[in-house]
Amino acid sequence: KVNKARLWDSLMEMAKIGATEKGGCCRLALTDLDRQARDLYIQWAKEAGCSIRIDAVGNIMATRPGEDMSLAPVGTGSHLDTQPTGGKYDGVFGVLSGLEVVRSLNDNGIKTRHPIEISVWTNEEGSRFAPAMMGSGVVSGRFTLQEILDKTDVDGIRLGDELERIGYAGDTPVTGREYHAFFETHIEQGPYLEAENKVIGVVTGGQGQRWYDVELTGQESHAGTTPMHLRTDALTCASSLILAVQAIAQQHKPGCGTVGFMQVMPNSRNTIPGKINLSVDLRHPDDAQLSAMDTELTKTVERLVAETGVQIHLKPIWYYAPIPFDKNCIEAVRGSAADLGYSHMDIIAGAGHDACYVSDFAPTSMVFTPCLNGISHNEIESTTPEECEAGCSVLLNAMLRMAEV
Amino acid sequence: KVNKARLWDSLMEMAKIGATEKGGCCRLALTDLDRQARDLYIQWAKEAGCSIRIDAVGNIMATRPGEDMSLAPVGTGSHLDTQPTGGKYDGVFGVLSGLEVVRSLNDNGIKTRHPIEISVWTNEEGSRFAPAMMGSGVVSGRFTLQEILDKTDVDGIRLGDELERIGYAGDTPVTGREYHAFFETHIEQGPYLEAENKVIGVVTGGQGQRWYDVELTGQESHAGTTPMHLRTDALTCASSLILAVQAIAQQHKPGCGTVGFMQVMPNSRNTIPGKINLSVDLRHPDDAQLSAMDTELTKTVERLVAETGVQIHLKPIWYYAPIPFDKNCIEAVRGSAADLGYSHMDIIAGAGHDACYVSDFAPTSMVFTPCLNGISHNEIESTTPEECEAGCSVLLNAMLRMAEV
Ligand SMILES: NC(=O)NCCC(=O)O
Ligand SMILES: NC(=O)NCCC(=O)O
Repeated sequence: KVNKARLWDSLMEMAKIGATEKGGCCRLALTDLDRQARDLYIQWAKEAGCSIRIDAVGNIMATRPGEDMSLAPVGTGSHLDTQPTGGKYDGVFGVLSGLEVVRSLNDNGIKTRHPIEISVWTNEEGSRFAPAMMGSGVVSGRFTLQEILDKTDVDGIRLGDELERIGYAGDTPVTGREYHAFFETHIEQGPYLEAENKVIGVVTGGQGQRWYDVELTGQESHAGTTPMHLRTDALTCASSLILAVQAIAQQHKPGCGTVGFMQVMPNSRNTIPGKINLSVDLRHPDDAQLSAMDTELTKTVERLVAETGVQIHLKPIWYYAPIPFDKNCIEAVRGSAADLGYSHMDIIAGAGHDACYVSDFAPTSMVFTPCLNGISHNEIESTTPEECEAGCSVLLNAMLRMAEV
Repeated sequence: KVNKARLWDSLMEMAKIGATEKGGCCRLALTDLDRQARDLYIQWAKEAGCSIRIDAVGNIMATRPGEDMSLAPVGTGSHLDTQPTGGKYDGVFGVLSGLEVVRSLNDNGIKTRHPIEISVWTNEEGSRFAPAMMGSGVVSGRFTLQEILDKTDVDGIRLGDELERIGYAGDTPVTGREYHAFFETHIEQGPYLEAENKVIGVVTGGQGQRWYDVELTGQESHAGTTPMHLRTDALTCASSLILAVQAIAQQHKPGCGTVGFMQVMPNSRNTIPGKINLSVDLRHPDDAQLSAMDTELTKTVERLVAETGVQIHLKPIWYYAPIPFDKNCIEAVRGSAADLGYSHMDIIAGAGHDACYVSDFAPTSMVFTPCLNGISHNEIESTTPEECEAGCSVLLNAMLRMAEV
């Protein structure tokens, strides 16, 4: 059994770092607040007897020794960075439930043959620096270390420089990482567990994603003197594109299509916008459908260029196909939920998770828990101590199945 | 005759202040660059023998004495502030052609019975601080001094504080201003003079305007886990609104409808936007049509609220009905253009101009000159020394008709 109150207290303590007025967290990747969260986590992990390593992309590995240190660890972990208007649980729950597993093992004097390793992965959110899941992506080989260090935020600040600045450019190599098995706990961030009234989601895989940067170039001109038919308005064109992204997703159920980021230039009320940068995020659990969505997006862009005269540069910046998790790891989660008497259902992750990339090189699954009204990436994100306890207990049980007591 | 080279040189000299890479100007109202432009103008006006007064909203009045100082001055003038991606002529031409009139009168030793007054009006653009034509609007009584001093920019900086900071909060009262007649020269900023191959636009009035601030509130949520039908996406709703504004204008020819400013929050690519602020700018030369556009906008907002669940707060922030200029002043411009042998046509101003508000308390008209491809509010805004000379010569002639040599 895990310690429900201790897990909850740790979540509440961590949530103070970057706390927002509306009860959420704003702790963007590699900011001073991210550093504070990392520092606190390392302190706690050391207090729980773990040794700490930091790798070249800033991932933190806390290890509880196993009886046979030649064996690959059984891993867990998630992330401490948040969205600009993030909640208290997205990511943090996965890290602190890993810590609670170690604390509980310590409480009960349980030794495992395999070491236990809890990871804090760098920049999972992909909000300040795109794309997402960078730390796990570098370790899995999806990204090169150099390309990630060279990523810049909207102000042109380099990820590698921020990593140095906050003191988390470590010396452990990003290559050669191994897990005997890997599990990640996470709030579902969607509505399905709540709708089906289930306590545990047994995650069988993650849907595929395609991200794009889009630049639209029209012609700045006067809002009062330029007749409607002589305009090359980047914003009306962008509006058509945004509605098309929505329609494409609606036509490919249960796909998602979102424009979450947009900058308008010169952003002056009586000047017709001449330049727009925006993001597109397409997702689908089926890769063929995701490809079809991509094709429709490209065709929409071509049509809008022809119709409006606005130049559109559609740049794909990220793609991964749907990711199936490991049968044995899925079964370990399902069996643990059943053993502990929690209602459960199979579910596909709608969000990207570090576990998706770890799955490239290690048997992996995830444990989902409900969140209120399925709302995440929002300061009002909410869950309960009981739900966290359930997810953490399933994690403990699944890890012990693999780590050999 | 005015001095073409001197006028052009002054335009080019002024354009250095806030010069942009693409050959335009970024000299937002009440910034340090606006101060530099004002300082240079005052220096030139003093060198031309003018006395200087600055009023409580920062308008600068440069006066060339008349033989009978009890008579109301014949006025001209415009503004020195620009759009963020502004050109070298919008506003500046109106100020410096006024100065060139004084310089030419000096060259030729011409005395007038009425004093000549050149005004630099504060914040004509309405870009940094909305609405536009603030300086002339306070003098005309359209705005109270206090409400204008209390306006804030997008960063919350108060206009009154900026005016103090740059040293242009003057002690001349804003009330009791009089002109025997007022003329403003300005580039057309639109395509009509060029299309009709005319050198001079005789401005018979200005179209009406309605400006709005719009706030849309949806619900932030995860871009990958929130099914399309469960979203309350402020950005897709805003996109529908933007396209509706365009359609409303298209259905009310020759009206204009523009969204030039928009901010997306939290502006993170994998979070569904929860809040949007945007501007709407509607214009029409016919007030009944402008009202109809306003009604349709309100109805569109109501429909979108009902359809999307996004809350929309539509706040009208500015309105003025179409403004007819004074018959005698119009005739002075038309007659001067004819006398000087310039091809000319009557035209309605699509943009708002300080002359529109001066027209509340003084007989007024304007002189338009062509600009390349009708493009303004753009760094590539372009005109020629010959076109400027023509506009300035018509101004000189029209002012002399009223100022009594
Ligand atoms: N879990 C989570 O919110 N990850 C962010 C990456 C994504 O947008 O899927
Ligand atoms: N002349 C000019 O561009 N004025 C700005 C105010 C407006 O948008 O009409």
